[in-house]
Amino acid sequence: MALHVLHYRHHGRAQWGVVANGAITPVPGEFKTTAEFIEANPVERLAVLSDPMLSESEVQWLSPVTANQQFICQGANYRQHMIESGMDPDVKKFNMIFTKATSCIVPADSPVVKPNEVQFLDYEIELGLVLKRDVTSRQTVTDGNLHDYIAGAVIVNDYSARDIQIPQMQFYKGKSYRTFGPVGPYLCLFERHDMPNLKDLDLTLTVNGTVRQSDSTANLVYGPAETLTELSGVHDLRTGDLLATGTPAGCALTIPSPEKQRAAAQLPEAEKWRLFLKMQEERPQYLRAGDVVEAHIVSRDGSIDLGVQRNVVVDEAE
Amino acid sequence: MALHVLHYRHHGRAQWGVVANGAITPVPGEFKTTAEFIEANPVERLAVLSDPMLSESEVQWLSPVTANQQFICQGANYRQHMIESGMDPDVKKFNMIFTKATSCIVPADSPVVKPNEVQFLDYEIELGLVLKRDVTSRQTVTDGNLHDYIAGAVIVNDYSARDIQIPQMQFYKGKSYRTFGPVGPYLCLFERHDMPNLKDLDLTLTVNGTVRQSDSTANLVYGPAETLTELSGVHDLRTGDLLATGTPAGCALTIPSPEKQRAAAQLPEAEKWRLFLKMQEERPQYLRAGDVVEAHIVSRDGSIDLGVQRNVVVDEAE
Repeated sequence: MALHVLHYRHHGRAQWGVVANGAITPVPGEFKTTAEFIEANPVERLAVLSDPMLSESEVQWLSPVTANQQFICQGANYRQHMIESGMDPDVKKFNMIFTKATSCIVPADSPVVKPNEVQFLDYEIELGLVLKRDVTSRQTVTDGNLHDYIAGAVIVNDYSARDIQIPQMQFYKGKSYRTFGPVGPYLCLFERHDMPNLKDLDLTLTVNGTVRQSDSTANLVYGPAETLTELSGVHDLRTGDLLATGTPAGCALTIPSPEKQRAAAQLPEAEKWRLFLKMQEERPQYLRAGDVVEAHIVSRDGSIDLGVQRNVVVDEAE
Repeated sequence: MALHVLHYRHHGRAQWGVVANGAITPVPGEFKTTAEFIEANPVERLAVLSDPMLSESEVQWLSPVTANQQFICQGANYRQHMIESGMDPDVKKFNMIFTKATSCIVPADSPVVKPNEVQFLDYEIELGLVLKRDVTSRQTVTDGNLHDYIAGAVIVNDYSARDIQIPQMQFYKGKSYRTFGPVGPYLCLFERHDMPNLKDLDLTLTVNGTVRQSDSTANLVYGPAETLTELSGVHDLRTGDLLATGTPAGCALTIPSPEKQRAAAQLPEAEKWRLFLKMQEERPQYLRAGDVVEAHIVSRDGSIDLGVQRNVVVDEAE
């Protein structure tokens, strides 16, 4: 059965523990990185631990993915989100890959800081997959052997400064601001028979209690197996690395229709982006200080529950 | 005076040494990462070492930037390269930032592997800057305090699969293939009075002996100080991290004129990219197996000489 792990601080010390019914069984040993924790603790070994010593409410959450790992992201990877963005999910052209700077990673209950220069701060709930092994050459990953490659899953919120990300073409900068990557709270580790559940996870994101994003991983366009197969042919992956698999429809961002995009392509660059930003100004969905963003991912049968992320938006101090 | 450091393997052991007149003075100690080496060895301390024990020809080069560091890149950052790409360098709009996976880093004399799925392999000589300190909050970096932030410089070749990079929108994947990031051979460490030379470095890249790229860092659009100022406001930087500052004109890649781009924007996506790839087919400059790429960066006064990179292009084994 899937096993829920918390990375936490207690009495000033960073530790890892297995969570069940709100109680934590600490995992013996010190593991500075996600890689060290996963390599030392196969899920079968953790499953036999049962000595709950702490309540969840006594500890301070840490991100279950540490900043030494890679933070790799897929873009435009849910069917409805692609349709919203003027793309056809049935004509799969390519698996869009980019990265976030790992210094954006924060615990799941952290405030999200809206930088002074950013006007359009947006949310993106995503299923994050955590690697189980190093990959240093081309592999053929299938649904049948996926368990050998993926240790478990986390919630990721890929916060994005749309006024930086989109007009500056490359997504990295606008998605890498400090606090733009809450991860956790739980790292849910899978046993082999849990893997089919990966295709049946419900994602829900609310802002101030109103649902903005709601979809199922059944609607992913590029699945984990084909994505890892392709990435393995490009670059190395390491145990503990994080792959964020893209976000469903329902973000604040609004993309001009294909017709409007074609018309805008005739305009001078500066005018094109002025119009793009003007469209965004009409979207009250963009986040502002005081907004509360909650993200939740759970399997329909309840056996996998990645917990709830809760981020309050705050303005950057001047 | 600028000091030239080599990271090398000798008798199976990775070491660092100071190079002068083809002879290496080993630096005492073991330093697994670029960060560890830089933190333990201020340039003033290295400058007094003089016990040449090895010839450069006896050792095997390693990359002076290790794979644990960040590999951050600037795009479209030389005046003539921007003009070639249909952009106006005098209307600076934004500093384009992206990353390469660090598993693409290889020593400066490595073969470059052309992946089977890649048709249009291109070169990009770049000046790489290596960070001297951690940066974890907004900083104001100026030409006056740049020496506090930059330890030294290296040659980077930002090899790029144009048929992946450009049609797939995000540059990361097409620039991250294994072997696509030779770094070195030398890490040239600067003393404070060397810093003005950063604006007077000549970059030269040849393919099979013919000059393809030749420019001066005097023509950089976004300089190191303003780039570090901006990045410090986005995410953390660590000692030893690598910032590749963009490439001059002269790549194999040909970008349609702004007029042609406007016309192409009216076409269906698939047709637009078919025409783009057809344009590339007419460029004999793209690399193929057996080509020899040499890259060299030197200051006009000769005091800074980052050495010569030499990469033979090979096809990926089937």
